[in-house]
Amino acid sequence: MKEFELINRYFTGRGVARRDVDLGIGDDCALVNVPEHCQLAITTDTLVEDVHFFSDIPPRALGHRVLAVNLSDLAAMGAEPTWVSLGLTLPNIDPNWLDEFTEGMHEIAEYFNVQIIGGDTTQGPLTITICAKGIVPKGKALTRSGAKVGDWVYVTGSLGDAGLAIESRKNGWQLDDEAFACALQRFHFPSPRVAAGQALRGIASSAIDISDGLLADLSHILRQSGVAAQINADMVPMSDALRNSVSVEQSLQLALAYGDDYELLFTVSEGSKLAMEAKLRQYGVEPVCIGQIQAGDGNIELLYENHPWPFPKTGFEHFS
Amino acid sequence: MKEFELINRYFTGRGVARRDVDLGIGDDCALVNVPEHCQLAITTDTLVEDVHFFSDIPPRALGHRVLAVNLSDLAAMGAEPTWVSLGLTLPNIDPNWLDEFTEGMHEIAEYFNVQIIGGDTTQGPLTITICAKGIVPKGKALTRSGAKVGDWVYVTGSLGDAGLAIESRKNGWQLDDEAFACALQRFHFPSPRVAAGQALRGIASSAIDISDGLLADLSHILRQSGVAAQINADMVPMSDALRNSVSVEQSLQLALAYGDDYELLFTVSEGSKLAMEAKLRQYGVEPVCIGQIQAGDGNIELLYENHPWPFPKTGFEHFS
Repeated sequence: MKEFELINRYFTGRGVARRDVDLGIGDDCALVNVPEHCQLAITTDTLVEDVHFFSDIPPRALGHRVLAVNLSDLAAMGAEPTWVSLGLTLPNIDPNWLDEFTEGMHEIAEYFNVQIIGGDTTQGPLTITICAKGIVPKGKALTRSGAKVGDWVYVTGSLGDAGLAIESRKNGWQLDDEAFACALQRFHFPSPRVAAGQALRGIASSAIDISDGLLADLSHILRQSGVAAQINADMVPMSDALRNSVSVEQSLQLALAYGDDYELLFTVSEGSKLAMEAKLRQYGVEPVCIGQIQAGDGNIELLYENHPWPFPKTGFEHFS
Repeated sequence: MKEFELINRYFTGRGVARRDVDLGIGDDCALVNVPEHCQLAITTDTLVEDVHFFSDIPPRALGHRVLAVNLSDLAAMGAEPTWVSLGLTLPNIDPNWLDEFTEGMHEIAEYFNVQIIGGDTTQGPLTITICAKGIVPKGKALTRSGAKVGDWVYVTGSLGDAGLAIESRKNGWQLDDEAFACALQRFHFPSPRVAAGQALRGIASSAIDISDGLLADLSHILRQSGVAAQINADMVPMSDALRNSVSVEQSLQLALAYGDDYELLFTVSEGSKLAMEAKLRQYGVEPVCIGQIQAGDGNIELLYENHPWPFPKTGFEHFS
């Protein structure tokens, strides 16, 4: 199958057809329209076999995940996702694999009303790069640089499940079947917090998505905002699957430092706290306050049950 | 060197800073502004080691080339390039290699006033995906679907040089030093026809860039326009380097079927022909008429010195 046939079979005429797309797949470029008074938000993420996913990942999960991690970046800016471009490098053309992979991608694209407007398919080691675009009312995007002293630090959901799935497999941990299934679902089919991100526009003072781990991603906000934070490790939300599968210390390591869960981490002023909680609940999101912004230059003070808690080095190195 | 340091060292604060970029590298997304009454043009191209370039390509050439092939797609739509996102997968962090690679990329980005607004750097087999964005006045983009019976078929410059560089190396052809240097320069540092593409807005009836080979790319125009074409193979422009290095038949194979030169192929009506030629000459481009659009359904009638000419199968398979 040549590139031309591959694109025709798996992409042309499938999936979302947005009214703001004048020209989709099939020319040198796609042509789209950005509404007046909106900024265009653009992000790119790459997934590489054996680096970001195991070789035997179900292709449908891979198709979902690669789009989800990109949409998560748009969510963290409060942007509405609109169009994505796909760079797909494949070692060979396996129609069954492609059926599943594109099905996973089309499913999440349809859920979020995102159109695949073009891309490039090439031969080589399995690598997928997506460039996702979205729109946000001018000046309303959430950034990493707006956190203020006294703001509260929140996350949108439980952390550490994806890490549990990866580490239990790598280290042969014997998990309860249900717990493993829960964790694997989080890793394979992350739910980008697209609605929550948009709901936080005009309310949150800063935001980021948790891809590298809570502490690492919080550090980005702190450095770019010129502040510090106190975090209550025992307040960090975790699933029963995680709590029941590993020691307290391991669960904290996974929740605080692993990443790959794609919840949002954000800050909100005292005055906006209640409005924010009410608004997110409308979207079925139960935000959890895990700490507070302090004066400082990027440092994180970790507490556990109100006592200083020295965070142990994880030693986790994902797929290495 | 971690991703964070790598981006800081090689990308942050370097290169073009466009006024339409509100937020560049360093947050979850970039934020940019599209002018009113303009469409956004978007294209993606991937280059994979040993598939699209030899492993020993000078990194500066690779940095230039990967951006050039993307800008060429924008040129083929008549779009003004504005912003690019970079997905860079590297087997390891080699500061010297990265210095050269990013220098090549920043050079061409500066020449065309394009800002690198973000991306993702990952570890894995050397693969580079760029998503390039540009703007074009609403309704003025050049597409593949506008060619009409009677229109003339043009190219913007000589073809086959990149193919000469690749094939002479693969097959050990003994080329004159100067000829090889000319051909290699075309392969390593292609010049996307950005100004010519914009000049052709409102004048050309269809356009495409020649990446897959003249005949293959012409076929895209013919199929999407619902027409056929007669092409005079002897009119296809070739460099002295190509003419003097190989047989007439080989030179025609390279010029007609190899691709990788990134000239524009376009059609223009009889009534716009002189205006088009005059306009392109203002930009130092000497367009060459190589044939005419006919009624039909995608077929190409090849002539050589006014006689039907059966095109020999090339057997060239680029890097395979």
